[in-house]
Amino acid sequence: MLTYSFADIGSDSLYEHLYKCVKKDIISRRIKPGEKLPSKRSFAKNLGISVITVENAYNQLIDEGYIYSIPKKGFFAADISSVTAKKQGSVTGENVAMTEGGRKYLADFSGNGSNIEMFPFTVWSKLLRECLTDYQEELLVMPPSGGALVLRRAIAEHLLAFRNMTVDPEQIIVGAGTEYLYGQLVQLLGQNKIYGVENPGFSKTARVYEACGAKVRHIPLDGSGICVEQLEREQVQVAHISPSHQFPTGRITPISRRYELLGWASKGEGRYIIEDDYDSEFRMTGKPIPTLMSIDVNERVIYLNTFSKSISNTIRMSYMVLPRHLMNEYYRRLSFYSCPVTTLIQLTAAKFLEKGYFEKHINRMRNFYRKQRDLLIETIKASPMAAFAEILEEDAGLHFLLRMDIPCTDEKFSGIMERRGVKLRGLSEYYWQEENRNQHDFLINYSSLSGEQITEAIGLISREVVRLHRNYTEKD
Amino acid sequence: MLTYSFADIGSDSLYEHLYKCVKKDIISRRIKPGEKLPSKRSFAKNLGISVITVENAYNQLIDEGYIYSIPKKGFFAADISSVTAKKQGSVTGENVAMTEGGRKYLADFSGNGSNIEMFPFTVWSKLLRECLTDYQEELLVMPPSGGALVLRRAIAEHLLAFRNMTVDPEQIIVGAGTEYLYGQLVQLLGQNKIYGVENPGFSKTARVYEACGAKVRHIPLDGSGICVEQLEREQVQVAHISPSHQFPTGRITPISRRYELLGWASKGEGRYIIEDDYDSEFRMTGKPIPTLMSIDVNERVIYLNTFSKSISNTIRMSYMVLPRHLMNEYYRRLSFYSCPVTTLIQLTAAKFLEKGYFEKHINRMRNFYRKQRDLLIETIKASPMAAFAEILEEDAGLHFLLRMDIPCTDEKFSGIMERRGVKLRGLSEYYWQEENRNQHDFLINYSSLSGEQITEAIGLISREVVRLHRNYTEKD
Repeated sequence: MLTYSFADIGSDSLYEHLYKCVKKDIISRRIKPGEKLPSKRSFAKNLGISVITVENAYNQLIDEGYIYSIPKKGFFAADISSVTAKKQGSVTGENVAMTEGGRKYLADFSGNGSNIEMFPFTVWSKLLRECLTDYQEELLVMPPSGGALVLRRAIAEHLLAFRNMTVDPEQIIVGAGTEYLYGQLVQLLGQNKIYGVENPGFSKTARVYEACGAKVRHIPLDGSGICVEQLEREQVQVAHISPSHQFPTGRITPISRRYELLGWASKGEGRYIIEDDYDSEFRMTGKPIPTLMSIDVNERVIYLNTFSKSISNTIRMSYMVLPRHLMNEYYRRLSFYSCPVTTLIQLTAAKFLEKGYFEKHINRMRNFYRKQRDLLIETIKASPMAAFAEILEEDAGLHFLLRMDIPCTDEKFSGIMERRGVKLRGLSEYYWQEENRNQHDFLINYSSLSGEQITEAIGLISREVVRLHRNYTEKD
Repeated sequence: MLTYSFADIGSDSLYEHLYKCVKKDIISRRIKPGEKLPSKRSFAKNLGISVITVENAYNQLIDEGYIYSIPKKGFFAADISSVTAKKQGSVTGENVAMTEGGRKYLADFSGNGSNIEMFPFTVWSKLLRECLTDYQEELLVMPPSGGALVLRRAIAEHLLAFRNMTVDPEQIIVGAGTEYLYGQLVQLLGQNKIYGVENPGFSKTARVYEACGAKVRHIPLDGSGICVEQLEREQVQVAHISPSHQFPTGRITPISRRYELLGWASKGEGRYIIEDDYDSEFRMTGKPIPTLMSIDVNERVIYLNTFSKSISNTIRMSYMVLPRHLMNEYYRRLSFYSCPVTTLIQLTAAKFLEKGYFEKHINRMRNFYRKQRDLLIETIKASPMAAFAEILEEDAGLHFLLRMDIPCTDEKFSGIMERRGVKLRGLSEYYWQEENRNQHDFLINYSSLSGEQITEAIGLISREVVRLHRNYTEKD
């Protein structure tokens, strides 16, 4: 076990001295990255100091990123080289290109994936095998540009049943993930247009538009969704919005605002609304509000959805529904593109929808997510931080907002929690530019957490919130 | 059987009268689309005219698109409504969006697919099933932006073994088909650059660049490949070429021109060469010439390849190899993109490469294609059109050029053959603008034809060539 002399302690407190000794050994690599440190109890016993002293030293080392803790396993030396590289902000091929998945967390509330364990593996495999056996010839014939007919028909039927949308299969274009379709839309609608995205919002949307050469305006939200006046003021021509469950705020755009948005779109030449319906399958309570596309008689709305949330994001399959005149333009100008999704995957997904497995899966997932949400809310309300916490927008989708009363910035709190193994992102991170927000709202995505992870992670968050308040009060 | 009166024949010849009667009935739908017409012999007997007269009438109806023939089956009324729609040049959703595969031909020499029957179905299915069983967790974790590590490692090893290229897996970016990667390259290199493509060439390349907002110049080829002086003159900054087997000419760029091209690229700031190596696996004879990327020390070459030709185009998987500085830029600016290929397909392909199946498959295909090519050449040389035909650029890839001495335009000849059930495209169709070419070169892609199709189709082509010459001579 590590042994340090307290002879040359100088003016430092015991805990400061211990902190410095361990830090020095980690920097000099005497303690190797990933090496386990002594438990607080045994370290204290060995050095002849109190457990509290060791705990204080460890806490500071955690806060500064020199060590990290894994609950129930102990404390470990961090890889300082990666910390240094990170701090320089340099992106080398090594760490971005080749990282498979990245760091593992005890709990990741910032994720936007689906629950791995809930993937209908057995059914999906069965259907894949069936397709391999039944469709040997079809599997090797290129489908039309918009995607395999069987899949587009199945999607059309699904939209009718679940979103009350009457669309022709030919209006549906299948793509390799929504990012791919954003790019196709820029090619269809024009790079010279001004695209309005939600602020705060899903940052990739703006990044794709910008990478494709389009101009982007970040449009603020109010309580009902994107601000129509601001769309006018910023001369937006194409508004990309997620009215059924905004990311990250979770807000649902009410019907009145929907009509206002359709009004805005009908007023100017060449205005469009891209309705991103990414997790609408998981609405939990209340009557669903009709999609913009289903109440649009002016062909101004493009509907977009993905199977990333509802099946798995590793499938990379999404689709858009084009209004008729845009559909014709797409075929005229862009149908030289081959459909980018492997035919086998398209045919398997078609079977999955046609045979009712998708519906069953969604219902199962909705129940699962409702339980997750209820457990989370219950755990938060029963935790010591209950007095400092409020839950917002919990009725739809795979996430809600946790508003916390904390005496520090969102960033600092996220940093503290990251070192405790809990990934948390503040709403402030989703704003395009820094905003002066008084509130501390954190995104709580519960799609991929187990019950155990929820209990443990909320416990850790609660402990930190309470500790911060205690320290803050003590300073006063 | 159809019966026509020859009483009101007027000044028409017998065959003209018969032609007009049948045509009228097809337009009026008395003869329904797809309806079988009487055989020449029985029709002649029934009407009391000679077989030659019926043949002449049928030939004119075929030439004008009113009927079509299926060898060994007979003559059928065409669907005039589709002809009319086609002639108006209108693209309705109906005919483009929803057509699965389109018209079936007796033989399609214009295709660029791979041979369906040669797809290694058993092995591929086996590996898919293995991945489903072995990789349950990996299948649901998002791979890095550039693609699954196992796949990129396998590609790097393949490139070393087959193209003598030493590249790091992190330089490899996996995409959903080459079209997808063309789009990524415009985002990486810039839309404001001038992209040079080969003329004649693969038309999609230019269309993608233009759809992505880039400027495109069509650069002529000489006997060695793309003209370097013309690249200079047109101020091209990014040259997209296929030096190992140009499409459609089949030309192989010799080493001297390759060095000239590298020289061109090194001369100006921000110049790049995109080396499209789409069917290099099927080089049949001679020592392979090194890829441009493998002899480029200046980081000016981006290498691009696809599994569309070597495995199947319905897999939609391709990759590019970026020089180091571009790789870093890609990760810095574009790694927010998710890899667009289904993880299952990536892992299956990785196994296919790793376990040596890809190598075996390529060897098998190369032998198969060599036999196809030899049979084709033999059949052409033994056919009555031998005196009017010459074969060009037959040493590599999946196609060669058939130069024919015919007394009509490429377009007219393709039209005649199309009505005979043989799809043929003249080299002239691959030029960006109409060129005054004295030669009649036709693309002969033999990747997806059976031996029987080859014999039959060459027989039909030969008959037409000989017929045209006879008619032409008779006119003189």
